[in-house]
Amino acid sequence: MMKEPKEVLQIFKPFSVLVEQEIMRVLEGCPRLLMYDMMRYFFGFADEKGTPTRVYGGKRFRSGLCMLIADMFGKKNKALQAASAIETFHNFTLIHDDIEDHDEFRRGRRTVWNVWGINHGINTGDAQLIVAFRMLAKAGETRDFLEKKFLEVIEGQFLDFTLTDMAITDEKATETAYIEVIRRKTVALIGAAAQAAGIVAKQPTHVQKLLWTYGTELGYAYQMCDDLVSIWGDPTMTGKTKHNDMYEKKKTLPILFLYNILSSREQKMLGNLYSKTGKLSEKEVARIIKLLDASGAYEYTRAKIENHAKAAKKAAYALPFSEKKRATLSRIVDALLPDIKRTCDHS
Amino acid sequence: MMKEPKEVLQIFKPFSVLVEQEIMRVLEGCPRLLMYDMMRYFFGFADEKGTPTRVYGGKRFRSGLCMLIADMFGKKNKALQAASAIETFHNFTLIHDDIEDHDEFRRGRRTVWNVWGINHGINTGDAQLIVAFRMLAKAGETRDFLEKKFLEVIEGQFLDFTLTDMAITDEKATETAYIEVIRRKTVALIGAAAQAAGIVAKQPTHVQKLLWTYGTELGYAYQMCDDLVSIWGDPTMTGKTKHNDMYEKKKTLPILFLYNILSSREQKMLGNLYSKTGKLSEKEVARIIKLLDASGAYEYTRAKIENHAKAAKKAAYALPFSEKKRATLSRIVDALLPDIKRTCDHS
Repeated sequence: MMKEPKEVLQIFKPFSVLVEQEIMRVLEGCPRLLMYDMMRYFFGFADEKGTPTRVYGGKRFRSGLCMLIADMFGKKNKALQAASAIETFHNFTLIHDDIEDHDEFRRGRRTVWNVWGINHGINTGDAQLIVAFRMLAKAGETRDFLEKKFLEVIEGQFLDFTLTDMAITDEKATETAYIEVIRRKTVALIGAAAQAAGIVAKQPTHVQKLLWTYGTELGYAYQMCDDLVSIWGDPTMTGKTKHNDMYEKKKTLPILFLYNILSSREQKMLGNLYSKTGKLSEKEVARIIKLLDASGAYEYTRAKIENHAKAAKKAAYALPFSEKKRATLSRIVDALLPDIKRTCDHS
Repeated sequence: MMKEPKEVLQIFKPFSVLVEQEIMRVLEGCPRLLMYDMMRYFFGFADEKGTPTRVYGGKRFRSGLCMLIADMFGKKNKALQAASAIETFHNFTLIHDDIEDHDEFRRGRRTVWNVWGINHGINTGDAQLIVAFRMLAKAGETRDFLEKKFLEVIEGQFLDFTLTDMAITDEKATETAYIEVIRRKTVALIGAAAQAAGIVAKQPTHVQKLLWTYGTELGYAYQMCDDLVSIWGDPTMTGKTKHNDMYEKKKTLPILFLYNILSSREQKMLGNLYSKTGKLSEKEVARIIKLLDASGAYEYTRAKIENHAKAAKKAAYALPFSEKKRATLSRIVDALLPDIKRTCDHS
């Protein structure tokens, strides 16, 4: 499973072009207000002045997945509204996430709140959420399904805050709690993107279920991979700040695994570090990395990722598609998961 | 037009009871998460611990208006989803407004962000917006209509930020800009509440137009009255901080009127006060109040309010209702507009 992110972009390219066109078309139909230029900016359709440009605005992987699967059913056009709504919704969540996490940059560009202030960040996000819902108005049978999934994503964000605010020593700060967070915050939308394609194509329930399984298993693997990368990934390959999750004391899967197997003396030490206010120091992060390296957390997380990737591929191969199409879905799983062994400094 | 706010509450009471029941029922169907207790808290259905209680959670005037008019058409039950969505949406905007305005209290209680922090405030607002849209899923023909109006409200908030950020000396800081703000931010939703009742009752276009006129004219009068109260109202009657809009240098109608008629020397002085960072001092506010009192801004705003109130009543009397029903709609106009002469210290 050792592909460049570039390959993912290539697979989704013919679809992301259509989704981007549709989003641009919808924004074009909105009043001439700077607020809509902020959305264009965040999508990568405009610069800070509102001047049209095209810069990288994300992998468009969720909407791309929806369109690609719909296309396999011969229903690409029918999925366009659902896919555009998913992409618009996903980017709305990022606009608000950036405020909540105080992130000043994303995809190498200033975040919306960083350019226009927190109030505009909140309000433009609100507007974009409504724009996503307006797109769903034309999304036929997927409308109700996706609206429910969107609410689950917000519930996931709530659970994420809750887990973040918990002391790592809290008995509720478990892998189960972590899974519950990512299930709603990340996995639900990826599963929904896959299943929406089946709904659009009026596929029977068992096919829709397989699509849901494919999307959600892919989602789990994707999120856990993200956790792994933040600890062991090479920042020049991933584009992320090295050990960012560690500095921010995020309770990701490797950390929760580590805590569980530590001696009570070490648990206390980690608990103290994690209960400090503010970011950890370089020295403190190095200390935790050393513990992580020796703990088997890497192998544990990696095995989990492999299991989810396998489950996603199994679902792909059970779908009523040609061998070629199944292979494409299987390749997407590998292409989306960065090659952590190669990019990491874990030996 | 000299009624206590109590009368408004009385008129809407039988309807707000139903709307509150419906909102509670919908929240009851949501997962057991503190996030939904935050919504209950803000609606006045629960305390900070999530324990059920019933405290004042607003006049429910928008949803009440929708239900009352629908009831006049004999379609009260059919309007319940639309009315509940309107109330839920309106309260979502307040949750985010309170963050944006740094307001720590509303209706005598701590605001959501003040109790649970800004991140939860943003996120719970997001969830509540989606809950409002989910209610619309059962709102039949009003669904599309209301979704569009909801987006207009957010556009109004954007324009409000823009006007607030403008120097008062800016040639774009005009009464026209102010009207554009309130048209979208406040008036659109009140007009929508009235028209939605007509849509639900399958009324012909001209009746729907009359309802829209009734609601929007009422909305203009309502918002301008709010502006007047903030300057000349008695805070013990209104429940608002005396001269709050002045301290915050809001560009309300009386201030924009004043600026226009000032000498260029006085304009410069006001421009300087309004370009200071932070709140104005008591002395500075007193100085502006003196100018306002002498300017005729009170009379000007009051006359505008009267005109809008009259237009609302005219629309009410053109509706295909019995005399008694028309009189009720007319009385609502008076009941909603506080008696500023009686409560103010302007002589």
